[in-house]
Amino acid sequence: MTAEPAGPPPTAPTPVGPAEIEAAAGRLGDRVRRTPVLALGGGDLGLSCPVTLKLELLQHSGSFKARGAFNRVLAVERPPALVAASGGNHGAAVAYVGRALGLPVEVFVPAMTSRLKQERITGFGAHLVVGGEIYDDAQRAADARAAASGALLVHPYDHLLVVAGQGTVGRELDDQVPGLDTVLVAVGGGGLIAGVASWYRGRAKMVSVEPEVIPAMERALVAGAPVDVGVSGVAADSLGARRIGAVPWACASPFVHEAVLVPDDAIIVTQRLLWSELRLVAEPGGAAALAALVCGAYRPAEGERVAVIVCGSNTDPAAVAG
Amino acid sequence: MTAEPAGPPPTAPTPVGPAEIEAAAGRLGDRVRRTPVLALGGGDLGLSCPVTLKLELLQHSGSFKARGAFNRVLAVERPPALVAASGGNHGAAVAYVGRALGLPVEVFVPAMTSRLKQERITGFGAHLVVGGEIYDDAQRAADARAAASGALLVHPYDHLLVVAGQGTVGRELDDQVPGLDTVLVAVGGGGLIAGVASWYRGRAKMVSVEPEVIPAMERALVAGAPVDVGVSGVAADSLGARRIGAVPWACASPFVHEAVLVPDDAIIVTQRLLWSELRLVAEPGGAAALAALVCGAYRPAEGERVAVIVCGSNTDPAAVAG
Repeated sequence: MTAEPAGPPPTAPTPVGPAEIEAAAGRLGDRVRRTPVLALGGGDLGLSCPVTLKLELLQHSGSFKARGAFNRVLAVERPPALVAASGGNHGAAVAYVGRALGLPVEVFVPAMTSRLKQERITGFGAHLVVGGEIYDDAQRAADARAAASGALLVHPYDHLLVVAGQGTVGRELDDQVPGLDTVLVAVGGGGLIAGVASWYRGRAKMVSVEPEVIPAMERALVAGAPVDVGVSGVAADSLGARRIGAVPWACASPFVHEAVLVPDDAIIVTQRLLWSELRLVAEPGGAAALAALVCGAYRPAEGERVAVIVCGSNTDPAAVAG
Repeated sequence: MTAEPAGPPPTAPTPVGPAEIEAAAGRLGDRVRRTPVLALGGGDLGLSCPVTLKLELLQHSGSFKARGAFNRVLAVERPPALVAASGGNHGAAVAYVGRALGLPVEVFVPAMTSRLKQERITGFGAHLVVGGEIYDDAQRAADARAAASGALLVHPYDHLLVVAGQGTVGRELDDQVPGLDTVLVAVGGGGLIAGVASWYRGRAKMVSVEPEVIPAMERALVAGAPVDVGVSGVAADSLGARRIGAVPWACASPFVHEAVLVPDDAIIVTQRLLWSELRLVAEPGGAAALAALVCGAYRPAEGERVAVIVCGSNTDPAAVAG
């Protein structure tokens, strides 16, 4: 399924650009890992075309989220504490950032968040509060806590500094693999695709990939603005935002060339292929973008130079061997 | 524990050099993956120094063994079939090579080889024969079969073409991270360190790392020639050769700066750190070289530029989360 872009034209100004992303990269320094890329040949994973994987699942705290969280915190005066809501990965990232910077952290997660992600958050020393059904419920609780406590709220995606931090993934990828035609990015609240799109600004096609059961970007592009969607399925704890954030929407929508949807079973197949053929452990949300190539939801043209961001690995490794 | 080199001086001619490794790289082409490197900062994994990991565990068939096996087979006239003995990884590699080239493969493994490695071999379509207690027993059976059948015996390490193939790991690493001072390499029969040492030929220090319970290189350096050692412990199914091969010995011994030994529990700790901090699943033999840094068996000097080859991942991923 495909939706054509409905946002403003790519020439319109957007809130984050290469300058903000360069500033973020300067702030982050070596606090984040320059994650490697892996070039796959045609035939690898059963794909008909060569593709480069950006192994962002090897990032500190197990996902790209550490980039945005560090940039959000380092760009402002040192706060007394950090508060965040999360399906799990962002919470782990903020907990990691708080530990690195010596700041207390409180993280709100919904009940659907896996025990493994909860332990990841507490393992970095953060205080964990479990409540509500989906991520949105946790966000409301975190908003209230931040307002009452004076702690800095670190939003998982709906903030310019968070988007600029995630944009450093695009900056690195562009340096590692110059001349890409297309980048496939999994979308939840939209922070990662917003950052990467803000770096490329049309020099490469952005393809958003979402589970069929959480089509927030696809529906937003059809509607011309973010709309609420259902949240369920295997990737709900990482891609389970009810709607695209306003800031990611403003940054990403002019540049999203195509929004593809993948069935949950293709995500699971891809997760298992990543293990059996590449020895990589990705969580469902981390495998989703690649699933679009594996199941044919996105079919590159002959000679198209494609990269896929494999963006998260916070899962029980036993799950990938099935 | 440390042993000083006892082989011929580094200026003596050795059987494999950069020319043979370049020829191997040409033969391999894109049949093997250019595996990525990951730079860790000081503090990562609790290490006091920066270190670069060569992620050879992401190679086809889950270890570096595919390189030597491809080179061995592609350098000669097409054989009717392939035979190999293995603790598991080499068998999987030869099975992978046979499938890629359309050749029937028979693999002999000892009873200690894990079910996962056995399934990896049969999963690539090879015929599997289980027998004997350790790898050496399987090798004798494979030798006999090759002699009787006319199939090409692909030795896991004791052959110039196999060593040259493994040397392509060093060639890639040198290109990816120029100017290294030191490379840590896990040693079983010695094929990988022989290949890497043959590429660097003294431009970087080679540090061999073995489990305390399988000190084949360490004892050989003391004795001045390969000697038999015991085979046991957590890495026995990948580093469990009873002695260094004659060819690897001739290639590697002039260049092995130091032979360090690591306890099995340090290997397990490192395997778990690789998962918890980096989201990499290494088997014990694949984690052994890094264990030398983690447990302090090898302590780099200030400013020493160190790389570690993380060379195998054929294990049950559930094992790393413990």
